[in-house]
Amino acid sequence: VAALVDAAVQTWASLPARAPRVHCLTNTVAQPLTANLLLAAGARVSLATHAAEVADMVRTADALLINLGTLDAERVAAVPVALDAVAGHRTPVVLDPVFVEFSALRRDLAQRVQSREGVLIRGNAREMAALRSGCEGRHTWVTTGAIDRVERPGQPVITVSNGHPLMGAVTAVGCATTALIAALCALTDDHGVAALAGLLAACIAAERAAARADGPGDFAMRWIDAVARLDGATIQAHARVALIPD
Amino acid sequence: VAALVDAAVQTWASLPARAPRVHCLTNTVAQPLTANLLLAAGARVSLATHAAEVADMVRTADALLINLGTLDAERVAAVPVALDAVAGHRTPVVLDPVFVEFSALRRDLAQRVQSREGVLIRGNAREMAALRSGCEGRHTWVTTGAIDRVERPGQPVITVSNGHPLMGAVTAVGCATTALIAALCALTDDHGVAALAGLLAACIAAERAAARADGPGDFAMRWIDAVARLDGATIQAHARVALIPD
Amino acid sequence: VAALVDAAVQTWASLPARAPRVHCLTNTVAQPLTANLLLAAGARVSLATHAAEVADMVRTADALLINLGTLDAERVAAVPVALDAVAGHRTPVVLDPVFVEFSALRRDLAQRVQSREGVLIRGNAREMAALRSGCEGRHTWVTTGAIDRVERPGQPVITVSNGHPLMGAVTAVGCATTALIAALCALTDDHGVAALAGLLAACIAAERAAARADGPGDFAMRWIDAVARLDGATIQAHARVALIPD
Repeated sequence: VAALVDAAVQTWASLPARAPRVHCLTNTVAQPLTANLLLAAGARVSLATHAAEVADMVRTADALLINLGTLDAERVAAVPVALDAVAGHRTPVVLDPVFVEFSALRRDLAQRVQSREGVLIRGNAREMAALRSGCEGRHTWVTTGAIDRVERPGQPVITVSNGHPLMGAVTAVGCATTALIAALCALTDDHGVAALAGLLAACIAAERAAARADGPGDFAMRWIDAVARLDGATIQAHARVALIPD
Repeated sequence: VAALVDAAVQTWASLPARAPRVHCLTNTVAQPLTANLLLAAGARVSLATHAAEVADMVRTADALLINLGTLDAERVAAVPVALDAVAGHRTPVVLDPVFVEFSALRRDLAQRVQSREGVLIRGNAREMAALRSGCEGRHTWVTTGAIDRVERPGQPVITVSNGHPLMGAVTAVGCATTALIAALCALTDDHGVAALAGLLAACIAAERAAARADGPGDFAMRWIDAVARLDGATIQAHARVALIPD
Repeated sequence: VAALVDAAVQTWASLPARAPRVHCLTNTVAQPLTANLLLAAGARVSLATHAAEVADMVRTADALLINLGTLDAERVAAVPVALDAVAGHRTPVVLDPVFVEFSALRRDLAQRVQSREGVLIRGNAREMAALRSGCEGRHTWVTTGAIDRVERPGQPVITVSNGHPLMGAVTAVGCATTALIAALCALTDDHGVAALAGLLAACIAAERAAARADGPGDFAMRWIDAVARLDGATIQAHARVALIPD
């Protein structure tokens, strides 16, 4: 565990210097918080979906986030274009299967993303249950809840017990956290380490924000502030991480 | 009046336990505040507009909100699909006719919504004037301003004198309030009581938020915080409600 | 310089009484902050993009903002419609060429806007470099950065040294500032004065907001609050403006 946390802390600390750009095909509700979280962490963001420019912007991005919330026809069309743009490239691809259990449209898009090797998928327990079906071994599965779980092919499950209930009381906190994980995936080939770094940063910042927040209204901005000033030593000191044999 | 306020307070108090899901066909500017207000009040939210999934999501929702702000072709197309999905069902339908006085597109969509029986319509005085034309008696009309008015078929007009001018100085506060009323309509067949509960909650929370706010910038988050901690006793103690014979 | 600052202060002070409406064809990420900044300054905002209503809303607006961020097909189509709606009218047109260096789609749209006489263009150094090509003399160019520059046809360059690094750490602050400049362009024919007024208001408010902010999370709301209470005397007292011969 200590080595994993060390690696996560180092990845987090290297983010501002590397300043990866995450291309986010994400829902309109989550766009402002997602952009501000990435900027606060030292990453960069682009959000274009138009057919005439999405391929170029994805090809030059350091990571690709695909979020299935509030789909419109243009974003639906952009998903395969974006996947084609990174085909044959090592660009990390991260999927947030928002409400995938509700619609065939989202399931089909999720399957399209999952047909790529080595995707990282972050969702809640219901969303993850709707997606799993025999291809678990090829991807990294990050299931968030009271205790977060990171499952990597053939390795022990990582659990993170940090966080705060206010994270579930504010829209887009989960979506933004997935984008942060995508930024970290650009810095290390080990998706488990990237997921751990993103979860620890988001959850420990949430604990600090919640301690000062009046409620869900001011929580989000305090969370961004806490991420902006979160250093590796703070993560080291507060991380509650365990390993469960596979 | 006392019985009405009692009923409104009870409806408000039952919201977290019932956790109704409001499907919001609403404008992109209002989406974040609307989602966060609903979550703060204990309701749930879905926002899909895509033709392939909107009918399913509306059919399983507890209330339907239709907001005419910043229309795009996809949301325009979603409105009749959503109305068809609730045809023959008792799902409450709530209309927010943003800027309806400005465009024939919005007037036509509003008329389509108004052709359903028993819709609740929430707008400002200009928007309401643009909509009324002989069908007043079938719907519940909620006109917000310095004094809010709730007009129900054949019953005395309810007025609410709570609130604060900052509510009109921040984008989407009115839109989000309409969504809150939609959530409450899922809990009682009496749209007047639901409207009263939503107006009292939004306006009394606004009074408390404004007392602490520096201005329009921090008002919205303080409003969300105040809604999250608003209990029935506080509403009872602060409600300024009157009845005007029809 | 003193006369320029005086004119800018007077323009700023007249904003609430005139309450110009800016029609903003702007990206979804920037919409909430843009709307709230305009409201805080005393202006009004409309955001429609649908083909059936955009021309009417633009024709009756006091200024037109065209922002190239997160384009979708509907907004791409709305740009020429909006430009046609103001052809032959004196409605000020302001362009924010977000990420124009990244895509041909954005360059083409920008050129379409630039074919109008006397547009005000506000961008960062990279965006401006991608746009300039022989037609500098016809437009007002506002390049923002550590020091902002306002370049008007045949006149000395105005520089503004106010501002704070947090302005670049939060999404949509630049986009919203451009919208504020558009509102001020509705109040004076001198685009240089309007740009100066908008830059001074945005930058001096940012200095005051940053002095109280914990980080990028709460900066945006404190910035809105600071704009809402910014008076002419404060701008006069804090303005750091210089002229550079052309």
